Amino acid sequence: MFESAELGHKIEKALYEREVPKLREALLNAQFDLAEKATFPVIILIGGVDGAGKGETVNLLNEWMDPRHIQVHATGEMSDEERERPAMWRFWRALPPKGKIGVFFGSWYTAPIVQRVLKHSDNATLNQHIEEINRLEKMLTDDGALVLKFWFHLSKVNQKKRLKTLEKDPDTRWRVTKLDWKRFELYDRFRKVSEHTLRETSTAEAPWIVVEGSDANYRSLTVGKILLDALRKRIDVPAKKARSKAAPLLASIDGLDVLDRLDMSQKLAKNKFESELEKYQGKLNLLTRDARFRKISVIAVFEGSDAGGKGGAIRRITGALDARHYRIVPVAAPTEEERAQPYLWRFWRQVPRVGRFTIFDRSWYGRVLVERVERFCSEADWMRAYNEINDFEEQLTAHGGVVVKFWLAITKEEQLRRFKAREKISFKRFKITPDDWRNREKWGDYERAVCDMVDRTSTSLAPWTLVEANDKNFARIKILKTLCERIEAAMDKVKSNK
Amino acid sequence: MFESAELGHKIEKALYEREVPKLREALLNAQFDLAEKATFPVIILIGGVDGAGKGETVNLLNEWMDPRHIQVHATGEMSDEERERPAMWRFWRALPPKGKIGVFFGSWYTAPIVQRVLKHSDNATLNQHIEEINRLEKMLTDDGALVLKFWFHLSKVNQKKRLKTLEKDPDTRWRVTKLDWKRFELYDRFRKVSEHTLRETSTAEAPWIVVEGSDANYRSLTVGKILLDALRKRIDVPAKKARSKAAPLLASIDGLDVLDRLDMSQKLAKNKFESELEKYQGKLNLLTRDARFRKISVIAVFEGSDAGGKGGAIRRITGALDARHYRIVPVAAPTEEERAQPYLWRFWRQVPRVGRFTIFDRSWYGRVLVERVERFCSEADWMRAYNEINDFEEQLTAHGGVVVKFWLAITKEEQLRRFKAREKISFKRFKITPDDWRNREKWGDYERAVCDMVDRTSTSLAPWTLVEANDKNFARIKILKTLCERIEAAMDKVKSNK
Repeated sequence: MFESAELGHKIEKALYEREVPKLREALLNAQFDLAEKATFPVIILIGGVDGAGKGETVNLLNEWMDPRHIQVHATGEMSDEERERPAMWRFWRALPPKGKIGVFFGSWYTAPIVQRVLKHSDNATLNQHIEEINRLEKMLTDDGALVLKFWFHLSKVNQKKRLKTLEKDPDTRWRVTKLDWKRFELYDRFRKVSEHTLRETSTAEAPWIVVEGSDANYRSLTVGKILLDALRKRIDVPAKKARSKAAPLLASIDGLDVLDRLDMSQKLAKNKFESELEKYQGKLNLLTRDARFRKISVIAVFEGSDAGGKGGAIRRITGALDARHYRIVPVAAPTEEERAQPYLWRFWRQVPRVGRFTIFDRSWYGRVLVERVERFCSEADWMRAYNEINDFEEQLTAHGGVVVKFWLAITKEEQLRRFKAREKISFKRFKITPDDWRNREKWGDYERAVCDMVDRTSTSLAPWTLVEANDKNFARIKILKTLCERIEAAMDKVKSNK
Repeated sequence: MFESAELGHKIEKALYEREVPKLREALLNAQFDLAEKATFPVIILIGGVDGAGKGETVNLLNEWMDPRHIQVHATGEMSDEERERPAMWRFWRALPPKGKIGVFFGSWYTAPIVQRVLKHSDNATLNQHIEEINRLEKMLTDDGALVLKFWFHLSKVNQKKRLKTLEKDPDTRWRVTKLDWKRFELYDRFRKVSEHTLRETSTAEAPWIVVEGSDANYRSLTVGKILLDALRKRIDVPAKKARSKAAPLLASIDGLDVLDRLDMSQKLAKNKFESELEKYQGKLNLLTRDARFRKISVIAVFEGSDAGGKGGAIRRITGALDARHYRIVPVAAPTEEERAQPYLWRFWRQVPRVGRFTIFDRSWYGRVLVERVERFCSEADWMRAYNEINDFEEQLTAHGGVVVKFWLAITKEEQLRRFKAREKISFKRFKITPDDWRNREKWGDYERAVCDMVDRTSTSLAPWTLVEANDKNFARIKILKTLCERIEAAMDKVKSNK
């Protein structure tokens, strides 16, 4: 992995000075085109051996290009708002929008590698992080991002030399601390862990570029030229819309699907409903006041047919909660800032801190429902969304999130009845729009999309609950009961972990 | 202040039950119209005596209306990201956009009142907070927000009764803690401080509404009706665009202004420039590595004529800094999310934590420059912006921010020379657009706006530095030097405070 970066690469000063002005102008022009077209973001990761010129290179990129359109993110201490969310949240919030360059100085690689070098984690944990990283980077590149990963390398001999040189010069002495020498002692271990990590994360879409760090001229020119080349290629030859390589999803050949299996005739009588409502609302209220609730967070997702009764069901939940403790996120069309980011970005920004109760009224599943059926996105986009969503929910769950997902199913006849009833109501909120009738014509397509969604995203960590919602009372109690059970189970785990 | 709220108001159950269904429907309709038109936000503040029904009322509003379009913000512990910014930052980030309702349960009133009651602050401090609050609310209402402030009151006798009743019922016993009784002992002091605060902050645009809290029916119906009434009034009779009541700004009668006084012939020879550049870049670098720098934050603002040399000057600053420690915010047109908020919101979201260096390439001064001259906003809007901006910068300064503002002035002849030179350059970033030529025709208007801006926003806390920028070298050194001096002065204060 590091062989080519220990050859003693060098560029003479005269050549360097001849090359740089052309390179700078070309980089600035490329950056200008990037900003003007704003079709993709550039994500540059900087990692490597201490003293190999990481900081110098970042500063140089800012000097060579227009620093107003480069955002540098240094991974320092986490803030408490970051600690109380999944580990990747801090990186999601820092992603550059389309047209901009984001430089991550220290990135999602830093913690996994350092923890393993210091033996704070084992190999299995490192490999799990590697898998998470590969999925994240695949999502980014699938989404069109240009991801460039630079690793600055020094041989052991050269790192020692470098530290000594810095120490000798009174102007740079401050840069070498005891910690640097302590880390130097771990050189071999660091090299081993890094090599493993780099090998496992060097993919066709986002390969590592290992740069020998000892000669500043060589290092700078190499990075600059690779960046320019990558920028120009992507700007001048727009990426072709990926065609779906996935095998087509098979429709059930006997016409039987998960929705057919629901017993839609289930009902709950009014008096039974009222006693159950009181029981489960009381229970939910008690659960959220339990001290262990401060250790988890609830993410409740509501999807369902139009007029399926999402709003009413949500109100039966919030009726049991204190308004200070929950937040409802109604999902509408993405804003301009959201459209300049990967699809899941707008949901990442809503991820709650621990101890919070968040209800999504429609959700990230729009990608595989309405966007699929109405062809708002390509097949490749919604096909990869299943995996991206599973990853997302896994990260939420790993951080104490209880992800509870409800699909409110009604029959086509019941929907018609409700539409007609609504048309008679003067009350504005329930106006029926032409859109509602149009969606209804695509009933079959939606049903197919729902079944695929359930098949592909109902996981043991975040299972779907299909709710027979022809009878509103029955649906509301089933939802409340499920929610209580899931929260209770999660809190029991908190206890046993203590 | 509280007399009318100690009369023993009561609404009979029968009347309440007759009134509520109509009220709910009307509220829902109003909320629907609010969301649809999205012309103003609703900000509801909830304060008052413990046990007077604050929490119940907030829950009721969520039950009566569509909770998906209400955001409740409870003021709990500050996160570290909040503590490291001016006190109002946490409220700015929680402001509802146009068309939505934001309920602040505990608000900008909570800390000032509680601190004074517990004698952690003196009267002068309380009065200073009151002034800040009045300015904030004036800004919000001037900007079109509907601000409703409810204060829930109980007489001392009734509060005691209320706490005893809650304690007796096994279902509600948990709600009364020792802290509640401790606070009850402070009733008289709390009442006195609250009364003073309410009186001083009851303005025509955002008056306090004191509600007697002992009878739930009375309390709920009162709040619901006031809210409905206020919503309907603002929705049905759109607020007339405020006409500027300000006296017209007088043009200088002898034609002399601050820009005329600049000696635009000042120059710096190349060799002198190079030694000075090294000196001040070195100094700036050292200053930002000083431990005391972690206690302050630098907010550098760059404004200037087109082709005034902002970009080049900024690069001479960032050249002295580590890319991990600064951020450049290039100010362009506001995004959709930003347009749904008060003017300064988009700058509040960029306010740095302590220890950071932020450079604004153009800034909030756009309001009184381009927006004034091009008539993108009304005279009333830009006239009030001077005070709003001074408040904003005062809050930044009070929290350790060093606000350094530069106006890069060039003569009309020098601009022409630079435009023509740029037209000959192939390099894309410097293309001259028709806009640049159009702006040039309004040279006089811009000059007038600049002079007014300097007169009205150059404060001792955040003075303007006018930079004679016909000679780029001279300008760059003046900027670097000023920046060093301001940072040094701020760090000296940190020391003496320790």
